[in-house]
Amino acid sequence: MDSIFADRIHDVPKSFIREILKVTLNRDVISFAGGLPNRDFFPLQELKKSTDHVFEKYGKDILQYSTSEGFNPLRHYISNRYKSNDGLEVPIENILITNGSQQGLDLLGKVLLNRGDGMIMEEPGYLGAIQAFSMYKPEFYPVPVNEKGMDIQLLKETLLKSSPKLMYTVPNFQNPSGISYSEDNRQKVAELLQSTKTMVIEDNPYGDLRFMGEKKTSFKTLLPSQTIMLGSFSKTVIPGFRLGWMVAPENIMQKLIIAKQASDLHTSHFTQCIIYQYLSNNNIEEHINKIRDVYGRQCRAMLTAIDTYFPKDVSVTKPEGGMFLWATLPTGMSALKLFEIAAEDNVVFVPGDPFYVNRTNSNTMRLNFSCVDEATIKIGIERLGKAIKKLAAKNKS
Amino acid sequence: MDSIFADRIHDVPKSFIREILKVTLNRDVISFAGGLPNRDFFPLQELKKSTDHVFEKYGKDILQYSTSEGFNPLRHYISNRYKSNDGLEVPIENILITNGSQQGLDLLGKVLLNRGDGMIMEEPGYLGAIQAFSMYKPEFYPVPVNEKGMDIQLLKETLLKSSPKLMYTVPNFQNPSGISYSEDNRQKVAELLQSTKTMVIEDNPYGDLRFMGEKKTSFKTLLPSQTIMLGSFSKTVIPGFRLGWMVAPENIMQKLIIAKQASDLHTSHFTQCIIYQYLSNNNIEEHINKIRDVYGRQCRAMLTAIDTYFPKDVSVTKPEGGMFLWATLPTGMSALKLFEIAAEDNVVFVPGDPFYVNRTNSNTMRLNFSCVDEATIKIGIERLGKAIKKLAAKNKS
Repeated sequence: MDSIFADRIHDVPKSFIREILKVTLNRDVISFAGGLPNRDFFPLQELKKSTDHVFEKYGKDILQYSTSEGFNPLRHYISNRYKSNDGLEVPIENILITNGSQQGLDLLGKVLLNRGDGMIMEEPGYLGAIQAFSMYKPEFYPVPVNEKGMDIQLLKETLLKSSPKLMYTVPNFQNPSGISYSEDNRQKVAELLQSTKTMVIEDNPYGDLRFMGEKKTSFKTLLPSQTIMLGSFSKTVIPGFRLGWMVAPENIMQKLIIAKQASDLHTSHFTQCIIYQYLSNNNIEEHINKIRDVYGRQCRAMLTAIDTYFPKDVSVTKPEGGMFLWATLPTGMSALKLFEIAAEDNVVFVPGDPFYVNRTNSNTMRLNFSCVDEATIKIGIERLGKAIKKLAAKNKS
Repeated sequence: MDSIFADRIHDVPKSFIREILKVTLNRDVISFAGGLPNRDFFPLQELKKSTDHVFEKYGKDILQYSTSEGFNPLRHYISNRYKSNDGLEVPIENILITNGSQQGLDLLGKVLLNRGDGMIMEEPGYLGAIQAFSMYKPEFYPVPVNEKGMDIQLLKETLLKSSPKLMYTVPNFQNPSGISYSEDNRQKVAELLQSTKTMVIEDNPYGDLRFMGEKKTSFKTLLPSQTIMLGSFSKTVIPGFRLGWMVAPENIMQKLIIAKQASDLHTSHFTQCIIYQYLSNNNIEEHINKIRDVYGRQCRAMLTAIDTYFPKDVSVTKPEGGMFLWATLPTGMSALKLFEIAAEDNVVFVPGDPFYVNRTNSNTMRLNFSCVDEATIKIGIERLGKAIKKLAAKNKS
């Protein structure tokens, strides 16, 4: 019966994270495994008010079928914010509203990827992107990232041995590692990609959540005609509406709109109107500042606790924003095995494996700090430190 | 620069209907071109009440990320309705909530279609399905439908010369033709497909909108393990939320959930909660009855007007439900040319071409009766009758 399936659906990784989340339903468990924004900041009352407003203002218009491109006032809002916050000129014709940025990944795979096309992925890289693109069977070329950004030497070698059509990158506070590309690194990456005409997919769901350091230049500025941008309201307003967007050059946008039509006609008009109303009636920058402050405090609390409770041979990244940091255990220590021990001690995280195109028993792990308060972070990291020591002792014996 | 694109995106038909809809923005134009449900029946106040209720009852829970499968109470509701209305046992594990049934088509293409796989399509067939499946480059085998259902002889011949993996069908009040498969026709189709193990995709967005005749047996009853069902709230409640569902056997459902995750993680949790609340607090059967009555009256008004104003050599279908009927002009008369003449006289429809996998200048056209009141239908059909006569005279001269 298995022959009924398309080849593309074989070997698409199941979301390991969703499996892990089942463990965390136990209330005694401290979870650094989630990838969720902190619900304390969901603007429930404001959204309720915006919803009332939208019912009042648009009536039945919000309930009918709508355009595939998205709600024009929302597209204008996004265009204006690119201008004021990033100095980028993005006409609304180049903006498509999607069901979260995840749908942007799927549409790009659909429109751009033939089987076997080369695609550079960050290593470690965003699980959801690996999953979405896997459907279209590209040849993945993983290039390692470090605290400065992409490994330039390895990128150069990869570009020499292949001619990848696309590169997928989360240059700000990457998921899973929390790292950001430095200005210098962005310049070098852009120079290399310019010569090979590789298109850059710049996914920036966390960009607004910077709690340290200086804002960096978008690849859109460095490689204007080669860059596609993805954005999302999931991390700054709410995830449950499933609203994101993509920005692409005109020729690609035309095809993306056809793919969007074929995929689901259009994104819910109702939720687009509500979020637009919310963004118009509230000070979103103030709102984001509050999130930034708390995530920054929680990140610092996690780093301090790690410094206290983890063995010194565990290294961690120092994020300037976002929701995650990344720990590397001593060589040979399996994060999957650590997960088992830690779960017994009521603390969980995501072992690194699913963030690689092809690797098992990696010695890395993702720690989320957006959803756990400072006191709990301290307790959880203490437990995790003990678990690491237990595993190290076990490995020695 | 065109080489950037994936092969699959070439030749995917653009939605011709969306182009046509631009003409109809002129208020003097009577449009039989739309495919929209009648907004008079959108339950605005009830949905507003349900939305308030949902904010009250679930608070921030409706705003967080959720499960790919969909909101469980809504899946239970769908399961129960299959039981009470159709006598079908559909466990919720076999139900996936999608962004309208259009997304169901896309996910099925993704999970089931390899390039070149055989797929039987009704001729004429649903444009959105042709578009969605085209992305996955199957080999389409169009089989004509008539007032009794599928042409059995031609289906038999098609099955002999190929072994199609899938058949796509809208057996109730088909879009675009308005025809329904008779009981006898369904039996014969099912018998043939059982022998070839072809999977049936039964799309049933209009099933509830029967205004004449008897309810017919689902392919799910006739071919339980070979049938996938698609459903939608777009035609009975509202389209703007983009909510539909699919029912599939367990092994296929597992892959569909992975494809759904990769496509957009999950459908908006917020709108799922609202529609569930609406369905729980209102008498939906009574609501649907009202829609049925009006669509039935409008369909009869259209048929009566056609009888009065169209030349006798134009034939039309007699729908028992749904939103469309289908007219066939005398052989050699182009519906595209008729469109030009009719648009000048301020009446529009959809020429048949986009409903065929590969045909131009067909002599057929789709007429929508859901959105135009009886008096306007009479005026519009009179105008259209005159346009047909004008074109016939032109063709003769």
